[in-house]
Amino acid sequence: MSGKEESLGYKGEALEAIKKANIKIGDIISITKNQETYEGILIPRSEYGDEKHIVIKLKSGYNIGIRLTPNTKIQKTGTGKKPTYAQTPPPKQKTGLPKVTIISTGGTIASRVDYRTGAVRPALTANDLYSIVPELANIAQIDAQILFSLFSENITPKNWTQIAKTVAKQIKKGADGILIAHGTDTLGYTAAALSFALQNLPVPVILVGSQRSADRPSSDAATNLIAAVTVVANAPFAEVTVAMHETPSDNTITLHRGTKVRKCHTSRRDAFKTINTTPIAKIQNQKITMQTNEYNKRKSKKTLNLKPNFNQKVALLKFYPSINPKIIDWHVENGYKGIVLEGTGLGHIGNYLFESIKKAIKHNIIIAMTSQCIWGRINMNVYNSGRDLLALGVIPLEDMLPETALVKLMWIFGQTTNTEKAKKLLKTNIAGEYSKRTLPDEIGN
Amino acid sequence: MSGKEESLGYKGEALEAIKKANIKIGDIISITKNQETYEGILIPRSEYGDEKHIVIKLKSGYNIGIRLTPNTKIQKTGTGKKPTYAQTPPPKQKTGLPKVTIISTGGTIASRVDYRTGAVRPALTANDLYSIVPELANIAQIDAQILFSLFSENITPKNWTQIAKTVAKQIKKGADGILIAHGTDTLGYTAAALSFALQNLPVPVILVGSQRSADRPSSDAATNLIAAVTVVANAPFAEVTVAMHETPSDNTITLHRGTKVRKCHTSRRDAFKTINTTPIAKIQNQKITMQTNEYNKRKSKKTLNLKPNFNQKVALLKFYPSINPKIIDWHVENGYKGIVLEGTGLGHIGNYLFESIKKAIKHNIIIAMTSQCIWGRINMNVYNSGRDLLALGVIPLEDMLPETALVKLMWIFGQTTNTEKAKKLLKTNIAGEYSKRTLPDEIGN
Repeated sequence: MSGKEESLGYKGEALEAIKKANIKIGDIISITKNQETYEGILIPRSEYGDEKHIVIKLKSGYNIGIRLTPNTKIQKTGTGKKPTYAQTPPPKQKTGLPKVTIISTGGTIASRVDYRTGAVRPALTANDLYSIVPELANIAQIDAQILFSLFSENITPKNWTQIAKTVAKQIKKGADGILIAHGTDTLGYTAAALSFALQNLPVPVILVGSQRSADRPSSDAATNLIAAVTVVANAPFAEVTVAMHETPSDNTITLHRGTKVRKCHTSRRDAFKTINTTPIAKIQNQKITMQTNEYNKRKSKKTLNLKPNFNQKVALLKFYPSINPKIIDWHVENGYKGIVLEGTGLGHIGNYLFESIKKAIKHNIIIAMTSQCIWGRINMNVYNSGRDLLALGVIPLEDMLPETALVKLMWIFGQTTNTEKAKKLLKTNIAGEYSKRTLPDEIGN
Repeated sequence: MSGKEESLGYKGEALEAIKKANIKIGDIISITKNQETYEGILIPRSEYGDEKHIVIKLKSGYNIGIRLTPNTKIQKTGTGKKPTYAQTPPPKQKTGLPKVTIISTGGTIASRVDYRTGAVRPALTANDLYSIVPELANIAQIDAQILFSLFSENITPKNWTQIAKTVAKQIKKGADGILIAHGTDTLGYTAAALSFALQNLPVPVILVGSQRSADRPSSDAATNLIAAVTVVANAPFAEVTVAMHETPSDNTITLHRGTKVRKCHTSRRDAFKTINTTPIAKIQNQKITMQTNEYNKRKSKKTLNLKPNFNQKVALLKFYPSINPKIIDWHVENGYKGIVLEGTGLGHIGNYLFESIKKAIKHNIIIAMTSQCIWGRINMNVYNSGRDLLALGVIPLEDMLPETALVKLMWIFGQTTNTEKAKKLLKTNIAGEYSKRTLPDEIGN
């Protein structure tokens, strides 16, 4: 076992304490603090931004994180094997803290490497969470459940419905906030879906992912989790948001509105960006700072309005030079109810598509326009092409994200089959998907 | 006529001179400078960042920009009508300056408002250019031609071929650089197309657009044009680049590599961003600063290798939750040669598409992967979904932009019908479309 492996995940004060006691991963140790002694196997801990906890597996199989204080004593009492992760009973919880339910749907944040096999496995029991991130026990009383375990690219609208219903159930049971662990690939789509499905929320619903798995030193899993639990337990807003790193380097976590957030980098910890508006809040050192006054307030007396249905017969179509108009015809022939176009610039597409657009609208299909620029606002009154499309009946979606527009139209056709009602809903600002004005400095915010 | 209208476009020194002489737009004036006197109608000038030129329409119908010096005298000699823009003979040109050909394809930069009718019309004759931006006469000897006049959303690969052939002809005729005025909507696609079509360039080819039309005070048309002409005439590189504003407020123009540039805002002057690498150069106050050492050098002795053909049977498909796998089948059935996928994150798509992908690849269709994140690099070895797709034969395109990947595959099938040769070309870095590493700070650069 190399020196590097021995200190796996420990750093700063905790690493020093281990070194000083000449302890290696897998050794049996006893830790004495406040006249209590804990004995167990020292298990690896990835780099979570915390230098103060040492994690051991007790004889019961239970993992515990012990915070170092000046009078904590650590002793090696035996030499053990590298630990395996057995099924363990739930940890003791402090009472009086806000109740937070963590719903796991899969993805990097919900998985961890089994050090014995190297395999990545879903591991979001409350117990696992406390052993990975013992700080959580001081923030909230956590109830964790695995709803399913999917890479998020495999998540479909049916899963959005499942998640929405599960959230509703947990809120009814008295949760003070809901955290959803989710793969980052389609996190933005699911966040938008829940924003429409969960109306009049009494408590916050926060989606959290991680860009680097918990076994990597650069993992953002724990910092994102700690921040997200803090916000979900304490924030004044009851909104669907996404909690992710603000920059690649620091510990500020940004809370993005579910309808205005997008994954804008394949690998960076700060991949998620709020587009065309300000984020809802930021959190640094457990301090929440609101970034806007426009939010729905947390009120436990509010009654959730659950609208969990989606219709998959809606398409997102990105325009490109010489795209075949027959693709639009194909969607018409296959019973699609709506098409969200990702046009160019202010909301344009090649005029060779106009005939097919006209036909689709004649068939009562909703055609809506967004921009592949991503940032900025649609304005179809500036050029002839835009005005022609408006005349054909194409609906301009202002500054709405293409992905949010897709999800919204799927959600709308889960509520109604009436085209006129659907159009009205599409134009109504339901969950902050439209913002009033485009901020001047938004690219890369 | 309001005071605001009277000073239309003039500011600073030029505005002061006009006010002092009590002159209004449309008045007949005489300007004496260096013992020469010019008489004509004062015509409007939009805000181009220059405070030193006064533009008059001479009796001949010819527009001339006169630079103010301490001994320039201005006098009102009569009261005229608001001017119209008649056909005018070409301006006198200075000799000894680099020869620059401006090819107009349409778009905002190539159009101007007729103050008589308010209509926007294409107006990129050399004469019009000198009357709009007299500064150009000091930078280069300009030859301007209108190739076509299209809103860029209507431009197709056939137009890319036309542009490439026209550029080749002008280079053969001895141009020291080529400027292409183009609508901004699909400017990035055309830039990528020309990057592949024009190989071993002896001189620079620069695409330039404007986000605001020349009749608006915030227009970027003239600053972009002046910078682009300066670069095309003097730059040490012979590359296909895009010249656009760096920030919303200043006069720095960025030169983006044609294969790495994308329109990222619907309306801002700095809408264009270099993605996943550094721009090639910047220009401020006519000073060009290189941003990289990796470029092809200007050498008039090089022989252009023209490869202007594109095959339209290539599609770009953006993945979204529950996208119908039959859309892939449809492309196979309709004779498509290749599909560029815009997957999620590191290069994933839902596993419900795998069967259709398999079938397509069996039919000898190239399936290539890019990311809808836009920023960052594909890595399909991290998760099972990625590894499965690699096993099926999907080609990962590293940090290539989805739009560039589409154009490249269209270009490849314009060169060969052999799938193996096509794959090899796709994996070869031909025009800087792959960059070696992803820079750490690229979102929103």
